[in-house]
Amino acid sequence: MRLPTLEGGKGRPPVYQQIADHIRSEIDSGRLRPGNRLPTIRALAADVGVNRDTVSLAYEALAGSGLLESVVGRGTFVRGLSVAPGGESPIEVPLSGAVEDLLAHENARPRFGVGSDVVPLHSLIPDPGFYPVDAFRRALNRVLQRDGAELLRYGPPQGHPGLREVLAERFERAGCRHGADQIVLCHGASQGISLALRLFASAGDAIAVELPTYHNVLSTLIALGLRAAPVPLLPDGPDLDQLERTLSRPDVKAFYTIPTFHNPMGTTTGLGARRQLLEVAGRCGVPVIEDGFEMDLRTSGRDVPPLAALDDRGLVVHLSSFSKSLFPGLRVGSIAAHGRSLDGLLALKHSTDLSDAMPLQAALEEFLRSGAYDRHLARIRKILRSRTEAMMTALEQEMPEGTTWTRPEGGWQMWVELGIDVDTRDLLADAARDGVLFAPGAQFFADRSASRGLRLTVAQADEEEIRRGVAILGNAVRRRAEIGSSGLGAAAVNM
Amino acid sequence: MRLPTLEGGKGRPPVYQQIADHIRSEIDSGRLRPGNRLPTIRALAADVGVNRDTVSLAYEALAGSGLLESVVGRGTFVRGLSVAPGGESPIEVPLSGAVEDLLAHENARPRFGVGSDVVPLHSLIPDPGFYPVDAFRRALNRVLQRDGAELLRYGPPQGHPGLREVLAERFERAGCRHGADQIVLCHGASQGISLALRLFASAGDAIAVELPTYHNVLSTLIALGLRAAPVPLLPDGPDLDQLERTLSRPDVKAFYTIPTFHNPMGTTTGLGARRQLLEVAGRCGVPVIEDGFEMDLRTSGRDVPPLAALDDRGLVVHLSSFSKSLFPGLRVGSIAAHGRSLDGLLALKHSTDLSDAMPLQAALEEFLRSGAYDRHLARIRKILRSRTEAMMTALEQEMPEGTTWTRPEGGWQMWVELGIDVDTRDLLADAARDGVLFAPGAQFFADRSASRGLRLTVAQADEEEIRRGVAILGNAVRRRAEIGSSGLGAAAVNM
Repeated sequence: MRLPTLEGGKGRPPVYQQIADHIRSEIDSGRLRPGNRLPTIRALAADVGVNRDTVSLAYEALAGSGLLESVVGRGTFVRGLSVAPGGESPIEVPLSGAVEDLLAHENARPRFGVGSDVVPLHSLIPDPGFYPVDAFRRALNRVLQRDGAELLRYGPPQGHPGLREVLAERFERAGCRHGADQIVLCHGASQGISLALRLFASAGDAIAVELPTYHNVLSTLIALGLRAAPVPLLPDGPDLDQLERTLSRPDVKAFYTIPTFHNPMGTTTGLGARRQLLEVAGRCGVPVIEDGFEMDLRTSGRDVPPLAALDDRGLVVHLSSFSKSLFPGLRVGSIAAHGRSLDGLLALKHSTDLSDAMPLQAALEEFLRSGAYDRHLARIRKILRSRTEAMMTALEQEMPEGTTWTRPEGGWQMWVELGIDVDTRDLLADAARDGVLFAPGAQFFADRSASRGLRLTVAQADEEEIRRGVAILGNAVRRRAEIGSSGLGAAAVNM
Repeated sequence: MRLPTLEGGKGRPPVYQQIADHIRSEIDSGRLRPGNRLPTIRALAADVGVNRDTVSLAYEALAGSGLLESVVGRGTFVRGLSVAPGGESPIEVPLSGAVEDLLAHENARPRFGVGSDVVPLHSLIPDPGFYPVDAFRRALNRVLQRDGAELLRYGPPQGHPGLREVLAERFERAGCRHGADQIVLCHGASQGISLALRLFASAGDAIAVELPTYHNVLSTLIALGLRAAPVPLLPDGPDLDQLERTLSRPDVKAFYTIPTFHNPMGTTTGLGARRQLLEVAGRCGVPVIEDGFEMDLRTSGRDVPPLAALDDRGLVVHLSSFSKSLFPGLRVGSIAAHGRSLDGLLALKHSTDLSDAMPLQAALEEFLRSGAYDRHLARIRKILRSRTEAMMTALEQEMPEGTTWTRPEGGWQMWVELGIDVDTRDLLADAARDGVLFAPGAQFFADRSASRGLRLTVAQADEEEIRRGVAILGNAVRRRAEIGSSGLGAAAVNM
């Protein structure tokens, strides 16, 4: 982009305005197109010979008109909506209140640049190096050769019957009485969460969630116009007195819980607590949405039956997933439900997207029946066990006095609580710069309140990286502790 | 199932109750399991030696307790929710108001048995015999061999970048200025409809829709707690005066329209009407959701640019699909949007299901780039043209005087308006028995009011079947006309 000569003086628009007008005309004429990156403020200021604040003002004015947008760490870009030459001015169409709230929520997420050599203790996506790609590709090829066009029609809204059957057998081994006809397949357990919430609640209602809970559920609630009613999570499960008080509220329509290998805590609700939880829900007549996203990932301790297996009153809607035990890219999850809840889920699923992609569901059935999934699980569990041990050892050796953490019996994640008074969102900037990422606690709290907790995972880091990452983290915490005691406070870094 | 001896007489429960109790105990003990089919009423009555009403009463009592359910044409089944021995009684958890409304809406759909030799003039799913299964399977296999695990991670919420690029090139040829960054891929255009509705409207709001319109949009509105504000569809497009009055209402948040090869009408909104429609929407400041589900299926006449190509004010959210031009089983659709609408869609998509399945999107990119899709389109358009001509000829030859119909320039569907006063829902029972299916008009009207219109399609019937099906339909109409004039009325058949 070449700017014309800029002129100051009386009667001329301010210089920032001239820069903005020029950029606007470049966009209107199509010479600058949606998605094009603008020069950095520093570069353009040097090029034009003005100070950086002037360029910054011009960019801000254009961003304010919706023509530019800045992406932290990536630069400033031309937005999609460009006005055609001679066209009328664009109209800002109002978005729904829930979408506005969702955008505000998303914009509050911390964004920061990350180098290539950073230890990824933040990610809950299993390492792609483990994915049995070839075995799955062959299964996919086989089912398409065998079933052909049948798999390329709309599937039944309930999902591929063969996959539902094999899932029903697996659920039965876990003690759940879901027949194939009680299972609705969905587009990842994340779609299952959306559907289950919509099944019970309308905009304005509240859903009881654990404090902390899976952060994407919090976004989903906002997108549906729902509120979170938090119930503290204790080491053995949700605080049952608080749960009963919450579920007794007329605006609370369901309880979303992750009883096994909680995200982000890594803890598991005990058998006794599970029975009591169901009694509370039963007394209040409130359904329970059980997220069993890592149910296949136990590495130690005794199996605890899913809530769905203990439920004899039709209270539980049971979600499960292959995203953490196999790979997420299939987008196949399942919801098991009974009676009218099942009818409602099916109707909702159909009204949302008619049906899922059958080729992937058929290939997954093939993959499960062949034993390839169980062989994969055995391998993954071994890796998970070894990495979890490495993590426990590293935390013991590297974290300063006063730090505590959970000791998961399965799943990729664990929770660390620091002994110093710091918002771990602030700590993340230090840690990222030093070479380790984690998920700060605040994102798992419905009110995003400051937390000295953080979630670590062993999904993408091997034993050596875990040791290195935790050592970096430990040093970052110790440095923070020193800054804190020297009085500089946590506000020094603000993301 | 073997029933114990039934005893009548004073002090014994009624016989129907004994039957019901026995079935209940079979369910409680697990001998009858969810999904099991019960004997027919006729068979069980004969077996036990009671009359059919007694068995019928027993089944009804159990259905009332939620233990059994009847599926018209399939039989009576054990429902999912069985009470464990010694367990507490099941709790009927309340569903959301929108789900209750959706279930009521779905239950009102006509259901009827269909033989195997019936001409399917009702279906808008392209004939699976045409699907290029092998070419697609090879494309899928190639991309998984090439990109491997990368395709099995979560994809970006916006969808596969390569597919978005090739779609942007295709849209550009149709005159649309959607860059790859303005496109959000979604799980079929049907998910696109849900997301676009949620983008602009909250429960309680209204959406302007054409009268008639795509029936699944009506279900989707109900599932989201939205109301339909119908605008009559004239031969050249929506009634613009009525549209302006409707879009001026503060509760109407968007206008959903199918300007090209309308479903169910088969008509196309003209260029002049498109420009006026956009002016109306612009004056009212209301966004337009353009469903371009068959945009690749023109067989005659001149191309009319999509609304999105004529929109220079950022009003249009543009949906497209491969379900009718390739096959539906991929569940790949796209939404193009601009500015904050784009931001909102992306946030909604992420909150709904995180991302789509990348293997299918990557394979579709490969399939498009290889030219295989365009070759397929050429073949499909030829078939479509020939079938549409056969349909026009058959309607001319077989339908009674007074019948009118639309003459589509593309797409699989056309609308027939009968010259007699009959609700085509009633006619459908006759036609199905005689050997032809169609979609009765009422299902495309927001209020489901009686219609003498019906939708025919040429998606699954070849030229010979079309001639045969229309001949059967013509005779059914003539017979109805005679019954009508003999005073028996339309209420004789009630579905």
